[in-house]
Amino acid sequence: MPEEMDKPLISLHLVDSDSSLAKVPDEAPKVGILGSGDFARSLATRLVGSGFKVVVGSRNPKRTAGLFPSAAQVTFQEEAVSSPEVIFVAVFREHYSSLCSLSDQLAGKILVDVSNPTEQEHLQHRESNAEYLASLFPTCTVVKAFNVISAWTLQAGPRDGNRQVPICSDQPEAKRAVSEMALAMGFMPVDMGSLASAREVEAMPLRLLPAWKVPTLLALGLFVCFYAYNFIRDVLQPYVQESQNKFFKLPVSVVNTTLPCVAYVLLSLVYLPGVLAAALQLRRGTKYQRFPDWLDHWLQHRKQIGLLSFFCAALHALYSFCLPLRRAHRYDLVNLAVKQVLANKSHLWVEEEVWRMEIYLSLGVLALGTLSLLAVTSLPSIANSLNWREFSFVQSSLGFVALVLSTLHTLTYGWTRAFEESRYKFYLPPTFTLTLLVPCAVILAKALFLLPCISRRLARIRRGWERDGTIKFTLPTDHALAEKTSHV
Amino acid sequence: MPEEMDKPLISLHLVDSDSSLAKVPDEAPKVGILGSGDFARSLATRLVGSGFKVVVGSRNPKRTAGLFPSAAQVTFQEEAVSSPEVIFVAVFREHYSSLCSLSDQLAGKILVDVSNPTEQEHLQHRESNAEYLASLFPTCTVVKAFNVISAWTLQAGPRDGNRQVPICSDQPEAKRAVSEMALAMGFMPVDMGSLASAREVEAMPLRLLPAWKVPTLLALGLFVCFYAYNFIRDVLQPYVQESQNKFFKLPVSVVNTTLPCVAYVLLSLVYLPGVLAAALQLRRGTKYQRFPDWLDHWLQHRKQIGLLSFFCAALHALYSFCLPLRRAHRYDLVNLAVKQVLANKSHLWVEEEVWRMEIYLSLGVLALGTLSLLAVTSLPSIANSLNWREFSFVQSSLGFVALVLSTLHTLTYGWTRAFEESRYKFYLPPTFTLTLLVPCAVILAKALFLLPCISRRLARIRRGWERDGTIKFTLPTDHALAEKTSHV
Amino acid sequence: MPEEMDKPLISLHLVDSDSSLAKVPDEAPKVGILGSGDFARSLATRLVGSGFKVVVGSRNPKRTAGLFPSAAQVTFQEEAVSSPEVIFVAVFREHYSSLCSLSDQLAGKILVDVSNPTEQEHLQHRESNAEYLASLFPTCTVVKAFNVISAWTLQAGPRDGNRQVPICSDQPEAKRAVSEMALAMGFMPVDMGSLASAREVEAMPLRLLPAWKVPTLLALGLFVCFYAYNFIRDVLQPYVQESQNKFFKLPVSVVNTTLPCVAYVLLSLVYLPGVLAAALQLRRGTKYQRFPDWLDHWLQHRKQIGLLSFFCAALHALYSFCLPLRRAHRYDLVNLAVKQVLANKSHLWVEEEVWRMEIYLSLGVLALGTLSLLAVTSLPSIANSLNWREFSFVQSSLGFVALVLSTLHTLTYGWTRAFEESRYKFYLPPTFTLTLLVPCAVILAKALFLLPCISRRLARIRRGWERDGTIKFTLPTDHALAEKTSHV
Repeated sequence: MPEEMDKPLISLHLVDSDSSLAKVPDEAPKVGILGSGDFARSLATRLVGSGFKVVVGSRNPKRTAGLFPSAAQVTFQEEAVSSPEVIFVAVFREHYSSLCSLSDQLAGKILVDVSNPTEQEHLQHRESNAEYLASLFPTCTVVKAFNVISAWTLQAGPRDGNRQVPICSDQPEAKRAVSEMALAMGFMPVDMGSLASAREVEAMPLRLLPAWKVPTLLALGLFVCFYAYNFIRDVLQPYVQESQNKFFKLPVSVVNTTLPCVAYVLLSLVYLPGVLAAALQLRRGTKYQRFPDWLDHWLQHRKQIGLLSFFCAALHALYSFCLPLRRAHRYDLVNLAVKQVLANKSHLWVEEEVWRMEIYLSLGVLALGTLSLLAVTSLPSIANSLNWREFSFVQSSLGFVALVLSTLHTLTYGWTRAFEESRYKFYLPPTFTLTLLVPCAVILAKALFLLPCISRRLARIRRGWERDGTIKFTLPTDHALAEKTSHV
Repeated sequence: MPEEMDKPLISLHLVDSDSSLAKVPDEAPKVGILGSGDFARSLATRLVGSGFKVVVGSRNPKRTAGLFPSAAQVTFQEEAVSSPEVIFVAVFREHYSSLCSLSDQLAGKILVDVSNPTEQEHLQHRESNAEYLASLFPTCTVVKAFNVISAWTLQAGPRDGNRQVPICSDQPEAKRAVSEMALAMGFMPVDMGSLASAREVEAMPLRLLPAWKVPTLLALGLFVCFYAYNFIRDVLQPYVQESQNKFFKLPVSVVNTTLPCVAYVLLSLVYLPGVLAAALQLRRGTKYQRFPDWLDHWLQHRKQIGLLSFFCAALHALYSFCLPLRRAHRYDLVNLAVKQVLANKSHLWVEEEVWRMEIYLSLGVLALGTLSLLAVTSLPSIANSLNWREFSFVQSSLGFVALVLSTLHTLTYGWTRAFEESRYKFYLPPTFTLTLLVPCAVILAKALFLLPCISRRLARIRRGWERDGTIKFTLPTDHALAEKTSHV
Repeated sequence: MPEEMDKPLISLHLVDSDSSLAKVPDEAPKVGILGSGDFARSLATRLVGSGFKVVVGSRNPKRTAGLFPSAAQVTFQEEAVSSPEVIFVAVFREHYSSLCSLSDQLAGKILVDVSNPTEQEHLQHRESNAEYLASLFPTCTVVKAFNVISAWTLQAGPRDGNRQVPICSDQPEAKRAVSEMALAMGFMPVDMGSLASAREVEAMPLRLLPAWKVPTLLALGLFVCFYAYNFIRDVLQPYVQESQNKFFKLPVSVVNTTLPCVAYVLLSLVYLPGVLAAALQLRRGTKYQRFPDWLDHWLQHRKQIGLLSFFCAALHALYSFCLPLRRAHRYDLVNLAVKQVLANKSHLWVEEEVWRMEIYLSLGVLALGTLSLLAVTSLPSIANSLNWREFSFVQSSLGFVALVLSTLHTLTYGWTRAFEESRYKFYLPPTFTLTLLVPCAVILAKALFLLPCISRRLARIRRGWERDGTIKFTLPTDHALAEKTSHV
């Protein structure tokens, strides 16, 4: 590998601890850049800042020179690629071929493909940009790197999270050289193996919140269903049967009776898979069988489902607080007062109604408060500062408390209404009764698992015990659980 | 140390910058794993992913092979431990002895103890698992490592926060070897010294939010006291003396008069220790004497106390917004209206009452808003992006503003009530009067410290000046302060 | 470079992968510290903890010994500086000269200047502390480092964010030595070039949220203007023209009509610069011309403006929820009821008013909900876990949705009021009409840019196309955009 490659690292003091001056020449290593776009420029800025000598190859050096940091030397492509051993190709795939004229000067050098295909490009070409580049320059070693880094990050400098730079190449030496440059630039190289995985690396910047797709669709689906159901009960039925116009309820009231249902069901769906997993392990009498894929995916999306549940719950709170602001609310109050007067009723008070409302409001606030703690602890920076025990304490224990609180919130809200015939509009039961099914099932199951006989057996299984009697060597439960059952 | 150990690091490009191909053999280093539990499997997955050759030793290779990544070679224990120099022991403490049969093959090798005792195990055994393992295999070098990492993290890959891997061993070479493996796997090794500290390392995953214990108990204690006090004043007194049934106030009203008291007192307890520390320094005329332990601990728990204060304040807001939703509120309004009509009073308006409420509501919102800024800036990812001056500006200055605002909120809420005899139920003063004591003391003290004479003296002391006249060499105030007085 | 320097790194296993025992002597390297202040002590603690031998030089060793970790050797300055090659100078600038007596022992050694000037010191001296130190000790190599680290961080150990240690010196060897020590202490060295940049490094800890200054002033300015305008319309006009006393509206009502205006305008100002930038690129027919500075700065402060907008919106929500809690609200209701009775009106209901309020409340909640998502994703730890596409999806797409929602919120709130003469107090139009101008302009512009002809041209330009026909080699749009146009 060329001498030049060592220096950035030396200048970063990450390696070469034995410091014979002989090995520390003073001039910085030279790096070439082809292209004069935004990325090329940000790259040049960063490289210069990290102590590299940068030579930019442009077709029109005069025009482009102004765009680059003055420390970078901008010249004609032929000249630019002559001396450096590593050359960044910041050029569109469609222009790769235009570089073939340089193939002689490039022979034996390391080409770094930093390009990012657009979605259609990615679908259109079966071979990755990097592999295509390699096919054009068989005498060069192509390394795929830096494509996940945006020009912005290059300029602003890497931050904690997005410092990782996946790197792949068929030539370990070249891979190492580029990795060392990445380190010198403040990034964290991640070895992605051979150039064959370049396509995968190029797909990374194209992903769009994949983990959120299913949970979001789930939430939307639930919302639509419950909204329709509530619409029929609260608006359609009075209109049809009592010919009352309650359509004004659509924007707030109906939404506000729908949101809690969604939040509540979603929350229960966070804890259902854990219960199913445990049940499955109990039935199989072992944990050494993979869960079915659907369960695996479900277990891995609990965090997103939980956060969506919290989001709906928070919206529910906001909508509820809006209720007394509504004109409708004011009119109802005034009309009620007038009615009282006309009926010569001096004192209005229904103790039971008062109690019901006081209780379920209080429970609702507490449930939301607990959920907010869960939401906060699932922030990366906080989750990462917790050890496994703390994390699972907050996420499973506290999360379960939230589930119980919201169940009580729902029950006290419902009060006796499930048993009053008048509540069955169109013979449809009150909405809250529908939402209770899953959560209660989960809570019951969790209660069952607490029975000594079952819990002991489950603990044994999770420590590696199997029905057939052989004991697997495994680590204690909290580790065993870490993988699957109680990770939200 | 065996040659093998170098390669992972080479493959991570963290070291060995001088790149004579001679020193870069292509085959990856070999690592052994004993055990086939979840942790063993996650470990194998990660090691394979980091470019190691993994050999798993199992008693029943056929059965277990399926559970491991195909790249990992699963074989009988004897065979597995023969060639690699480093062997991970992912086995329960109680099964360590069962490995003694391998002692000959293991002789002279590095055993990595990754085990995590459960709480009772930890209490039960006076010697750490690692030391126990070392006693069983005197010919091996035992290294304690990776126990703080959960199987989950091993699979998902390390994230920012929980990348640290505490490592201890009596043999520096072995320690380094394992540290380099940790680095190659993307973790950050932390040297914990000799194997004697293994017990401490094994205790790490058992800790459960230690910093939160005292503050939480404090908050709960305050809540109980104030709740009882408010119960007596708002519910018991009317029941006993006016035989009015106000028990419906328990779930919401009483809670909502209690929460602000807790939040307010907690907030003042965040700033009290700073004042005490300053006072102590003034009296001692030096800062070069340790604070008493209780004060030290208090100073170190200010962040948690502050966040709990914010949590209570937020709950207080939620409860307050629930008030107009309550049936009780509706009934009161209607009854009031009816009363007006019967009394033939056409216009109801008490200017003073109106003003009082408008002002304290507004102040309350502002106080909560300021507190929320404090809470946000105490998130790790944000706190770490601030320099010391910015952090202390937000935490002390803005925090003090929040304290003043909530004091005004309390005072305007109280208005003249502290002086109305009728407010003294059972001769008990209104609750808000009790809460005012500490905060006002803090505010007064802070005001005193602003007096030129005192503030100058305090500044001098914090710059290292001492009454006996000698000047210590120290860094400027902001550094001096960093350690103690204004770090929330 | 002295042998000693290698060992800390070896002990951290970051370098020297080839592990011939010869190169790993057992005794730790020796480091000297001059000064006995807080920083000196924290530094000693940290160095000892990282496996260094620490010698502290004090004028009065007996007195100061107690303050340092027992592992650190505290002795007289002359003695302390004799053996170590690297000496930390934790001393005030004004005391540098007092060290000149040591210049003979210090000759040829590395002096690390860790000092932090106070603001006035920084303004007062044109040359940095480090350069001043260098001028006093021409025979030594001065390195500026660790000044950004607070004594607190040194003791508590570095956390994710604030691990960076800017280092500058004229002597690369010395720079590397100190960088390696920083690494060994768990910090991340950042090369800042020659000692000439020491002044800049010393200024770092003095900065106070620079990025927030302008946006905050902007928000405050807007608040004052709108507050005055609303005061005139809602309080002054009724007082003057109808001699009604509405001054009680100042603390809540007026604030609550002002906040949404500020939030709304700020939000539109987040998206205006992007539109201007695009327009500019369209007119110029190229993106290879720098934007005017004011636009550049504006583009870079969008995040702060957006967060302030969210903060105001949240406060607006809190204030709104307080409205029904107000005495004034209660009195109005009761009086309205009484009026109804006296007028013998039994049923009060204005369908249009009801609809208006239901709709704008619902839209308001949705807008706030969307904004909160934006706020959360701009948390460092979350923003860094998103790739560019995800980030810009949330920030531009979702952000634009929020803008549209709040526009609808404003329009439905306004309803037909803009056209009712009675609403023009003092001939001043209703406040909401003023706020609509900018946002609507932005939305219209964004809509225009969606027209195929314009959008295609814009895309071409952002891919590097220029009117003069030459095609620049650039990376795909998302990268191009990263730098400027849609980064919030």
